[in-house]
Amino acid sequence: MPLVRIDLSNDSPETLGTAIGELIYQAMRDTINVPADDKFQIVTRHAAGELVRPASYLGIEYSAGLVMIQVTLNHGRSIDLKKAFYRRVADDLHGQLGIRREDVFINLVEVAKENWSFGNGEMQYA
Amino acid sequence: MPLVRIDLSNDSPETLGTAIGELIYQAMRDTINVPADDKFQIVTRHAAGELVRPASYLGIEYSAGLVMIQVTLNHGRSIDLKKAFYRRVADDLHGQLGIRREDVFINLVEVAKENWSFGNGEMQYA
Amino acid sequence: MPLVRIDLSNDSPETLGTAIGELIYQAMRDTINVPADDKFQIVTRHAAGELVRPASYLGIEYSAGLVMIQVTLNHGRSIDLKKAFYRRVADDLHGQLGIRREDVFINLVEVAKENWSFGNGEMQYA
Repeated sequence: MPLVRIDLSNDSPETLGTAIGELIYQAMRDTINVPADDKFQIVTRHAAGELVRPASYLGIEYSAGLVMIQVTLNHGRSIDLKKAFYRRVADDLHGQLGIRREDVFINLVEVAKENWSFGNGEMQYA
Repeated sequence: MPLVRIDLSNDSPETLGTAIGELIYQAMRDTINVPADDKFQIVTRHAAGELVRPASYLGIEYSAGLVMIQVTLNHGRSIDLKKAFYRRVADDLHGQLGIRREDVFINLVEVAKENWSFGNGEMQYA
Repeated sequence: MPLVRIDLSNDSPETLGTAIGELIYQAMRDTINVPADDKFQIVTRHAAGELVRPASYLGIEYSAGLVMIQVTLNHGRSIDLKKAFYRRVADDLHGQLGIRREDVFINLVEVAKENWSFGNGEMQYA
């Protein structure tokens, strides 16, 4: 059920968005109990000026390689699970794709389980 | 007050996004008590790889024609109303636009009624 | 922590999105207690038909210059603070950028403070 929006720069390789998405999906599977094949993602690439970032915030310095990840998912993950998810995504985007750990921005939006229809006009979760 | 984001493929006809939007609006009017003329929608078309989907999930098989619909609206619709909305959108996108029922993905994000300004810098609902 | 999505027309000047973003950031600083340098924004420009609007709603008439602003931020701002934010954004977009006050559409999505990672794989707020 997570719907993942990934916004990144036009200057990044064309396949980077989906590579990031694959790692996010694996992180969700392993850290926050997302079912297999529950992989719905929207990648949007933007011109340089359209991803606005501060030079730094909370001591973190950002570059033009900033990746903004917004995940809509069901309520109910604990703080510890969320922490594990953030850590894992930053680790993997850095380790496997060379993205700076500072440039991994994640936001979660939580919704009720009846707020999804995965096709066929049905409410699959409630 | 719903803000509707419709994400679909670049390969679809240029007018498909707004045709989908019109049917979603009619479905909202008829099933979940959305006022007349409350029609605010953002259509975004994406290159093939940028709408990521599984081959199948929960027994539903997806195609490149997948349409992802994310609706931000006020809290308070019952499960039955949401079910009616999902059904109606899938029925109409299929019946009137030929979209596969499996390819209609819907997510709702609920907010408080004071979370909207429809223009003029006013908070119209609270 | 606000993540601000700004959707506007392709027909507007290329720099308008970031100019709007700067004013939104200043309004957040001054009206809803957003920390300095907490400025993360995603601007997306759309073809004419892709920003769907009614001719009018609640007595407000819209033009092709409609700007749709969706802000994800932490729970907890009062109704009065939100009102002040709406007013300020409409005032400044009008006064400094010549945007019609009617064309300033704002929606807030509220989340828990543990729903953010600002980089480094950390949960900075919880």
